[in-house]
Amino acid sequence: MHNTIIYEDPAISIEKEESEIPWLKIFTKAPYRELTDMPKELRDKVWDVYYIIEEEMRAYYKPKKINMASFANMLPRVHIHVMARFENDSYFPNPMWGEKLRDAELNLPDEKEFHKILHAKLAHYFTSLQTERRSGIPDRRKRC
Amino acid sequence: MHNTIIYEDPAISIEKEESEIPWLKIFTKAPYRELTDMPKELRDKVWDVYYIIEEEMRAYYKPKKINMASFANMLPRVHIHVMARFENDSYFPNPMWGEKLRDAELNLPDEKEFHKILHAKLAHYFTSLQTERRSGIPDRRKRC
Repeated sequence: MHNTIIYEDPAISIEKEESEIPWLKIFTKAPYRELTDMPKELRDKVWDVYYIIEEEMRAYYKPKKINMASFANMLPRVHIHVMARFENDSYFPNPMWGEKLRDAELNLPDEKEFHKILHAKLAHYFTSLQTERRSGIPDRRKRC
Repeated sequence: MHNTIIYEDPAISIEKEESEIPWLKIFTKAPYRELTDMPKELRDKVWDVYYIIEEEMRAYYKPKKINMASFANMLPRVHIHVMARFENDSYFPNPMWGEKLRDAELNLPDEKEFHKILHAKLAHYFTSLQTERRSGIPDRRKRC
C-alpha cells in the first residue's frame, strides 16, 4: 500500500488515510505501544501537531465535527487519527469505524491545497520553535 | 441514565461508561466543541488526567492495548474516551464502535478497587501540583 506522507521531521510523520473525508494519521518515527510509553517531550510534540492539524482542518474544510482516535489493536504501535466529519458523510454521526449509513458524495475543497497549507504551517511552527529556543524567547507553544 | 462519576474537581469530571471493558470518559466542566476551543491550560490538564488513567489502567488490568477516542458527533461537546482492551473482549481487534465479533465473558479484577486507586492517584497528583505551585517548586507534571 502506498502511504502519502504530508509532513515529516526526525521525530514524527503525518500520513494521509485514503478516505472520502479528510483523514490524517500522526506517527512517531520511533515506535511506542502506548502514549504513556513516549517521553513527555514527544507527547507534547504530538499534541502540538494534533492541534495544528485540527485548527487547519477546521479553517479549511469547516467540518461539522473533528474526530480523533488512537486504537492500533492489530499492530500495537500508537498513532493518532484526525478526521474532519460532515453531516452528509457516509457514516455521520457514527464514528468512521461504525455502521455506514449512506453513500455520500462529498464536494470538498482541493485536498492538495490543504496539504500545502498544513505543511507550511507545521514547518513554520517548528522552525519558529527552534529559533526561539536558540534565542531564549519564550516558547511559542504557549499560544496554543 | 445514571452516570457514575469516578472523580471530579472544578475543571473536569471522569465518568464511567457502562461496558464489559474498563471504559472511562474525561469531560471538562465547561463545554467545548473541539479540543482547540479549550484554553491551553485546560488541554494540558485533560492530557495529564488521561495519562494518569492510562497508566493506572495498564498497571491494574494489564490490557492488551489502550484505546482512546474523541467523537461527540451527536452532541458536539468534546470529551475523551479511555478504554482498556483485551484480546478476548467482544470487539477486539475492532474498535468498540466496530463490528462485534464474539460474546465475551471477561474475568476482570474488581472495578470498585480500581476506581478507588485511580481517585487516590488523581487527588494526590492535583494536591501535589497545587502545593508545588504555591511553594514555587518546579511543576511535577514534567515527570510525565
